[in-house]
Amino acid sequence: MNRLTRLDRALFRVQAQHICLEWIFREIAGRPGIVFEMGLGHGRTYDHLRTYLPERELYVLDREVDCFEDCIPPDDRLLLGDIADTLAAAATRFGGQVVFAHADLGSYDEAHNVAIRAKLSRFLPAVLAPGAIVLSDLSLELSGARALPLPAGAREGRYFLYRTDLTPMNEIQPRPA
Amino acid sequence: MNRLTRLDRALFRVQAQHICLEWIFREIAGRPGIVFEMGLGHGRTYDHLRTYLPERELYVLDREVDCFEDCIPPDDRLLLGDIADTLAAAATRFGGQVVFAHADLGSYDEAHNVAIRAKLSRFLPAVLAPGAIVLSDLSLELSGARALPLPAGAREGRYFLYRTDLTPMNEIQPRPA
Repeated sequence: MNRLTRLDRALFRVQAQHICLEWIFREIAGRPGIVFEMGLGHGRTYDHLRTYLPERELYVLDREVDCFEDCIPPDDRLLLGDIADTLAAAATRFGGQVVFAHADLGSYDEAHNVAIRAKLSRFLPAVLAPGAIVLSDLSLELSGARALPLPAGAREGRYFLYRTDLTPMNEIQPRPA
Repeated sequence: MNRLTRLDRALFRVQAQHICLEWIFREIAGRPGIVFEMGLGHGRTYDHLRTYLPERELYVLDREVDCFEDCIPPDDRLLLGDIADTLAAAATRFGGQVVFAHADLGSYDEAHNVAIRAKLSRFLPAVLAPGAIVLSDLSLELSGARALPLPAGAREGRYFLYRTDLTPMNEIQPRPA
């Protein structure tokens, strides 16, 4: 058995992503909420999300738009800027409304990844709905959310899956009478 | 059934490539010959080839080296320049010696693809050994070679597989006595 090559890892990664997304599309079906795509990149995943979730309000968060011509999101669905700034601003506009957030913000630069993890862990929870799903290429520490095992066929460690608790984080439980 | 998204196509492409390479590694096992990797890109496939074919002389042809740090080929295995020029020069040094050639030179620019197809079709055959395998992301017209169906599990049309005839192209058949 050889070590995993970069081609092996690229295959396992896109397989895991594809399988997770299929599971998530079923999981959120029939539940209200908007969708965040964080990290447009070439636009491949955005193309997948808009195709499989045609009825959803789908917002794209990235520093810039640098994708395939046919994958450019509409202007009014783009939240451009540093992810910490756009998420912080989104907390007012979209607080507690995001039913699914996909993050593909990792790189081969570990310092970059540490910074992104910290930003997502700090600012993502406020926009998430109760029971929301998060799929990320970086492992995260999200308050009010638990890690889920990946669906069958997706190799662990290639993507990371989380679900927020069903109780809204900012909801104050009424005391029993 | 939705149309294929760009994520679907990326998955099917890397799956087909991975499956074809596995088949090729078995197919050329025990046969002499060198290997050409045309189009280094990020270096993922190069990493796969050097790992699974550790005993082979493996040459990389590309315009430039712009890949992951840990995938940079040794200087003496690099043939840098336009693929037509490097292949034309290789015909002298490596004529009839390449047992497997992998080409990942396509792009989303169709004019570029037409030009690359023409260059590969013109200059690749001279370096190929009898019975050599060619795996390409672009369909080719290689004199002295036939298209092969992809191995089981690889979706047709994502990669293109060819095998040269077992008779060397430049060998003059002796007349029967």
